[in-house]
Amino acid sequence: MNKHAIEHRPKSSYCYAYDEETIHIRLRAAKNDVKSVTLIYGDKYQWEDCKEIEMEASYFDHLFQYFAVAIKPVNNRLAYYFKIEGIDEILFYTEGGLVKNIDNKYLIFLQFQYPYLNKADIHITPDWVRDTVFYSIFPERFYNGNSLINPDPLTPWGQKPTYMDFYGGDLEGIIKKIEHLQTLGVNAIYLTPIFHSPTNHKYDTIDYFKVDPHFGDLDTLKRLVTECHQRNIKVVLDAVFNHSGYLFLPFQDVIEKGSKSKYYDWFHIKKWPIEHEPPSYDTFAFVASMPKLNTQNPEVREYLLKVGRYWIEEADIDGWRLDVSDEIDHEFWRHFRSTVRTVKPDIFIIGEVWHDPSPWLKGDQFDAVMNYTFLRNCIGYFANEELSDLQFKEYTNEMLMKNTQQGNEVSFNLLDSHDTPRFLTRCRGDIKKLLLAATFQLTFIGAPSIYYGTEIGMEGGADPDCRRTMEWNTNNWNIEIFNYYKNLLAVRRKYKALRRGNFKWENYEGILAYSRAIPGEKVIVMINNHNSIKTINFSNEDFRGFKDIYTEKPEVIDKLELKPYSSRIFIKLEKHN
Amino acid sequence: MNKHAIEHRPKSSYCYAYDEETIHIRLRAAKNDVKSVTLIYGDKYQWEDCKEIEMEASYFDHLFQYFAVAIKPVNNRLAYYFKIEGIDEILFYTEGGLVKNIDNKYLIFLQFQYPYLNKADIHITPDWVRDTVFYSIFPERFYNGNSLINPDPLTPWGQKPTYMDFYGGDLEGIIKKIEHLQTLGVNAIYLTPIFHSPTNHKYDTIDYFKVDPHFGDLDTLKRLVTECHQRNIKVVLDAVFNHSGYLFLPFQDVIEKGSKSKYYDWFHIKKWPIEHEPPSYDTFAFVASMPKLNTQNPEVREYLLKVGRYWIEEADIDGWRLDVSDEIDHEFWRHFRSTVRTVKPDIFIIGEVWHDPSPWLKGDQFDAVMNYTFLRNCIGYFANEELSDLQFKEYTNEMLMKNTQQGNEVSFNLLDSHDTPRFLTRCRGDIKKLLLAATFQLTFIGAPSIYYGTEIGMEGGADPDCRRTMEWNTNNWNIEIFNYYKNLLAVRRKYKALRRGNFKWENYEGILAYSRAIPGEKVIVMINNHNSIKTINFSNEDFRGFKDIYTEKPEVIDKLELKPYSSRIFIKLEKHN
Repeated sequence: MNKHAIEHRPKSSYCYAYDEETIHIRLRAAKNDVKSVTLIYGDKYQWEDCKEIEMEASYFDHLFQYFAVAIKPVNNRLAYYFKIEGIDEILFYTEGGLVKNIDNKYLIFLQFQYPYLNKADIHITPDWVRDTVFYSIFPERFYNGNSLINPDPLTPWGQKPTYMDFYGGDLEGIIKKIEHLQTLGVNAIYLTPIFHSPTNHKYDTIDYFKVDPHFGDLDTLKRLVTECHQRNIKVVLDAVFNHSGYLFLPFQDVIEKGSKSKYYDWFHIKKWPIEHEPPSYDTFAFVASMPKLNTQNPEVREYLLKVGRYWIEEADIDGWRLDVSDEIDHEFWRHFRSTVRTVKPDIFIIGEVWHDPSPWLKGDQFDAVMNYTFLRNCIGYFANEELSDLQFKEYTNEMLMKNTQQGNEVSFNLLDSHDTPRFLTRCRGDIKKLLLAATFQLTFIGAPSIYYGTEIGMEGGADPDCRRTMEWNTNNWNIEIFNYYKNLLAVRRKYKALRRGNFKWENYEGILAYSRAIPGEKVIVMINNHNSIKTINFSNEDFRGFKDIYTEKPEVIDKLELKPYSSRIFIKLEKHN
Repeated sequence: MNKHAIEHRPKSSYCYAYDEETIHIRLRAAKNDVKSVTLIYGDKYQWEDCKEIEMEASYFDHLFQYFAVAIKPVNNRLAYYFKIEGIDEILFYTEGGLVKNIDNKYLIFLQFQYPYLNKADIHITPDWVRDTVFYSIFPERFYNGNSLINPDPLTPWGQKPTYMDFYGGDLEGIIKKIEHLQTLGVNAIYLTPIFHSPTNHKYDTIDYFKVDPHFGDLDTLKRLVTECHQRNIKVVLDAVFNHSGYLFLPFQDVIEKGSKSKYYDWFHIKKWPIEHEPPSYDTFAFVASMPKLNTQNPEVREYLLKVGRYWIEEADIDGWRLDVSDEIDHEFWRHFRSTVRTVKPDIFIIGEVWHDPSPWLKGDQFDAVMNYTFLRNCIGYFANEELSDLQFKEYTNEMLMKNTQQGNEVSFNLLDSHDTPRFLTRCRGDIKKLLLAATFQLTFIGAPSIYYGTEIGMEGGADPDCRRTMEWNTNNWNIEIFNYYKNLLAVRRKYKALRRGNFKWENYEGILAYSRAIPGEKVIVMINNHNSIKTINFSNEDFRGFKDIYTEKPEVIDKLELKPYSSRIFIKLEKHN
């Protein structure tokens, strides 16, 4: 047995409470090295009644096979260890390591433990997110709905953006184009920052309590949210708490008064009078216009928590996306979660974390992060074709196994954002590749997010080019892409299996395939990410009852051809009790 | 390279903030499989200035070798990956896994990150604990200092205890025997619970705000703390928050009024009227007299936090030991830490966790746990001789590597407690073995804890036998043991290296050896845990300048004999600048 590969740790993605009565247990072993894993489990105070259950060989990645099981402990207490049957030997994996036999005199030291399933420790993620497709909007570039509040000067709509120019998009514009969201079929919008700020991106806040005057006012925002809610569309705003803008009054006060300012400790001032090149204060990256806030100062914390509460109470928003969230202390986010959930218990909290998000997804901080690992895998597989079907599957599985199931269920899965090149541009304009990636994104576990314009074939490189103005002349739309998205979203809405079904890879040679299933409803997705026709041979048994999800025509076939860079989605409905 | 063995995860014991400017990084690899590991690190916003540093091969356990390095990131931000030189190949270990080359187009996905070193996230453990030896007292069995408050009936001092009997030990008794603590040389006491309760162990509280009348009153406690503080002895009390006693008024109110009681939700009531066999409410284990408190109820939380504050404010205690702490929700403990540290910033918080403590030792909950892993290793090695020198070293290293350095520095290392057989009894009365274990305990990293009576050779099996009355007739003491402890504590007090020195295993064949060193002061401990004489051969070079730590006589030797089951401690002092 490859002993070095065996891994398990309680109170991690290997062992966590899924709901009020269920604990999920996972064990990692080397791939193709272990025949079976049995969990021996019980109540530590009544171990004589311990039970055994065989774990399921679930996901695998490049090196490892994961085994999984769900346990409902009778008295909320769970003690356990593993019996691992390898090719050549049987070993027990315990908190004391791998042993040949369980020496009962050391039993208490050998048991792993999830000592008590307390409700307060469960990571409860908002249920509605499981049924949600997000649409991400950079408001300055979406639609100019109110020319009375245009910035001056105004660059003509449609020009190639620079870092500094303004086009006049505003909140009224989103209200006016709400029908587009409905036609497309999304049911949530995420807006990059909308509070008072001198820039087009508004990541350098002047006033956290004021809608930017070029975007509208409190009333416009309230109307936007109301119009959205009337259409069952949720609204998520962007909280920029890592840093303020240079013009934020407390920072201006510090510039003026130095250590005599009551806001001196709101920032990290290294030298006064303030210098800018380089900044004599901590900043976001090395950007002088974005002084880092001291979120460890209780006054700053209270101020920002008030911001968090205010927009829920005033405008009834449904979620917060947290800018540069990984550079703020965890303690702040714990206060944030408990504060905003007190106001709205099913508020959705999405952190911006580009790397391993697990330190933030334990239940005390965020519900999800912008899933850039998902993006990385899609770039490697769909856009660049540097990953094989198997490798993509392995990377995807590794991503799933790094997090809990409830985390994966609400993961904010994106192909592009205001911080990345557009996916179609990464695909060098190859529409087929974008559509394959979108197929995966919209049929995978999690909450997909579509970056405005991607659904009509907009292109754009890195910032600022990915922030082009939205194309509203439908003659310039790629209707193939738009219809594809529209239809895909429609079937996702129609079939619960596509939103909440259990995800499982399916084995069909030469392609990527997986299923999503709930009782009575099973969807199979087949993706041919290759430049050649792939032929799938079924026994009739195999595929009986499956219909094309769009045409709803039965496929009575024993073989199926998938064209290069194409996909098919099938569904089978059955009565169940 | 054994790829399955490579492990690292940010924001874990593999990567954590040690202090305000230092991040510790560790990497795990298979033993004897890797020649060197280099950390490539920098600021993610200025990666072009990244640097390289070779990591130190630090501890190893049965399967793995750990590499370690400390980094002081210039702008508080740290991005990094590893270059691993194996026997046969060089690989980079990244957040994207093991790769042959760093593909710069995926750089942001390959960097591990400690995104920002925020002070609030550092696990700051109380500095004084590093210089502390604890003495654990079960007050009912220590000394009867005030016969006016004797329980009735009273079992004669010295009789073999049963579960239910009372002997009359009290707080006045501890005050009267404070000289014993000073003679022994300990500088902190931990008392098992002292609040109003019907039992001798007092783990079933009636009133959290009242000293048990058989133990004394608030004034006695205040005098005890004052007398201790005058002698630089700290005082730690026991917080029993997982459950109350059956006679706790809120529980009595629930028994009487059922769901009409305002305390109904203070517990986990499954059925009313209350039944006892089995209990119709959640309990500690299956003990009907210990109803589990609902610490997730904000009222209960506030009540218990008030208890936590009250005894610090009223009696000036220095620490809390937390009973059955692993069965209470993490959220409660986060509130507890911030509450008690607000009252006394260097309060010491010790959880009762018998298994992997890392979920509680991240900085937001406890400072330490009662280190039963330490005990497990000492049972296996010293008492039972089931572990070889090498295995003991490996288990010890594994324990150290599961936690952070600041956690290890204040670990509450014990050989016995009120919940275990006494160590001398585990050694079947073999004094030499106890003294070897004590030598290790008192010269290892962490805060040792001596269970009352162990220092004079008291024996006792599992509870209630381990709770015998303290022997005060010095004629019945084992003076050899007492003097050994006294002398060992004296050198520990005298030499800072023994308290705060860097811990390192030393290689001398046939024995267990390690050093503790600070600049100018190096101690070497040699332990022969075998039934045969061990001869150590030095080159003079090797050992020049070392003196016996007790006799302070120089050892000009090229060989040294260690008798069976004996130890030697040497010290070398050097001027340093």
